[in-house]
Amino acid sequence: MKKIINSVESLLEESLNGFAKAHQDIIEFNNTPHFIRRKQLSTNAKVALISGGGSGHEPLHTGLVGIGMLDAACPGYIFTSPSPDQMMAAAESVENGAGVLFIVKNYAGDVMNFEIAGEMLSCPCDTVLVSDDVSLPKDHPTGRRGVAGTLIVEKIVGAAAEAGASLAECKALGDRVNKATATMGVALSSCTVPALGKPTFEIADNEMEMGVGIHGERGRQTMPLENADQIVKHLVEAIDPELQPQKSQKVLLHVNGFGATPLMELYLVFDLAATLWQQKGIDVVRSLVGNYTTSLDMAGCSVTLTLLDDELIGLWDAPVHTANLRWGC
Amino acid sequence: MKKIINSVESLLEESLNGFAKAHQDIIEFNNTPHFIRRKQLSTNAKVALISGGGSGHEPLHTGLVGIGMLDAACPGYIFTSPSPDQMMAAAESVENGAGVLFIVKNYAGDVMNFEIAGEMLSCPCDTVLVSDDVSLPKDHPTGRRGVAGTLIVEKIVGAAAEAGASLAECKALGDRVNKATATMGVALSSCTVPALGKPTFEIADNEMEMGVGIHGERGRQTMPLENADQIVKHLVEAIDPELQPQKSQKVLLHVNGFGATPLMELYLVFDLAATLWQQKGIDVVRSLVGNYTTSLDMAGCSVTLTLLDDELIGLWDAPVHTANLRWGC
Repeated sequence: MKKIINSVESLLEESLNGFAKAHQDIIEFNNTPHFIRRKQLSTNAKVALISGGGSGHEPLHTGLVGIGMLDAACPGYIFTSPSPDQMMAAAESVENGAGVLFIVKNYAGDVMNFEIAGEMLSCPCDTVLVSDDVSLPKDHPTGRRGVAGTLIVEKIVGAAAEAGASLAECKALGDRVNKATATMGVALSSCTVPALGKPTFEIADNEMEMGVGIHGERGRQTMPLENADQIVKHLVEAIDPELQPQKSQKVLLHVNGFGATPLMELYLVFDLAATLWQQKGIDVVRSLVGNYTTSLDMAGCSVTLTLLDDELIGLWDAPVHTANLRWGC
Repeated sequence: MKKIINSVESLLEESLNGFAKAHQDIIEFNNTPHFIRRKQLSTNAKVALISGGGSGHEPLHTGLVGIGMLDAACPGYIFTSPSPDQMMAAAESVENGAGVLFIVKNYAGDVMNFEIAGEMLSCPCDTVLVSDDVSLPKDHPTGRRGVAGTLIVEKIVGAAAEAGASLAECKALGDRVNKATATMGVALSSCTVPALGKPTFEIADNEMEMGVGIHGERGRQTMPLENADQIVKHLVEAIDPELQPQKSQKVLLHVNGFGATPLMELYLVFDLAATLWQQKGIDVVRSLVGNYTTSLDMAGCSVTLTLLDDELIGLWDAPVHTANLRWGC
């Protein structure tokens, strides 16, 4: 294992210390228990948005805390759910009179711990479960996983909360964006979890994993490595029947790198995916290309499509100021 | 070689097509010859800032074209200098009455081709050579290389040009920032250039390359892999005697990932480097952490320090709107 770390045990805290130091103008780091919170809370009563999950997906979620997005994020150890006491402490720190909305990627541990925290909170609290990964069937026993579409839910609900939407409105909006969002990913390599010290799975030089999540796990299918045209066709064809975008439908197209794939390749994937949808008359009006929901040093990427309307476009465009997503301020 | 591409020959153009499609609100892509230019030129006469170099370092330079930074960027093939006709065409496209300043990383091919282009231009033209890489001695026959500090030169000079600085002022400012900037890098792996199809150099699992550039070349020294504390100490100790920051000196600290190193590790490096300088009384007032000057899929990072004064802080903070660096607008 080749990593720039001091020890497996100290990695998370040292990294969060650096994050807090680099972004001290907008966030604060609470060490015991771990959470990152927005430095300046809204002066009005505002729904507090809180997310979290295992670390190793940076910038998700800590890099998305700030004006117009999350109020707090709870990082667990790498690929490990944060604990209810982190979520409780974060909620109590940022709640300011309009309740708490948890935005939770659908993984058993995260769901359970956020549920426990929600039950223990004394303020109104609700949860949006993100389940955008279409590599698993709709009727999968534990439901579909939350992956790169989570950022889109957080951005859009974050803008609504900032504009004064109620807890019920934020919850309904989050569910709506989740339903309008689908993601499919492909990996060319596994990642190396520091505590394990070696790649999670072996993959041959002429193979790829189609339908992967974001934890370096095996995908839906190991396939022969193909060229970019064919890879992107698989991704688009997995998403298309789920959302069934009609002609002239406005969409956000998000190409997310898992960590080790160069930006050149991500933009190439964006071009091919956009072209395929444009050929069907779909209107790609917004885009996001880069490493946002990563899986440590995994090579590969996912494609996410979100069906937009004018309200969602307005919320996507609204000002945001976080460590890793920033515009309009 | 595992990459998401169609062919080595088509990679650059397909990637630029995707980049242009994703950022059509701020940039335009000229195909023959290749350059990316700012969509809306300044309405006043403004020094035109142009950079360029081999591709494979994205987001440098194409992702830094826009308001408050570059007016155009000329991408060569991967790790290959762009040609004088690209630079000429870009300059003629964006020059608007105040001359052209080339910002050039110090590599023989880039320097020669920008020089040829400058000689052929009919408008006033000057060049800032960036040479921030302290892994080579000051008296190296071809001079020191330009690496991650290039972004800092481009941001600060970009803000000055936007504010109406003259060609002579921009040139002097660029030289001043270059002199106030030093970078040292370390790699844990090589990168794989598509045309070569395999890693540029072999490195054992228990080794690292200290003092690397950004082209997957061997560094100053192959060393046993050490822990993060020791790695960062090497980087800081290479930079410190070059800039000799005094107590209370304000600095910008930039930790740049080469491509495949997770953000968690980059923030850890930031924490350790900031702490070492803070212990000497240095005041880290600005920061930038992320993958900005990459070397395809190389694992590793560089640390860059720039000595700041109030003028440079103001220019760093000035609004910028490019694909990959954006604040204040």
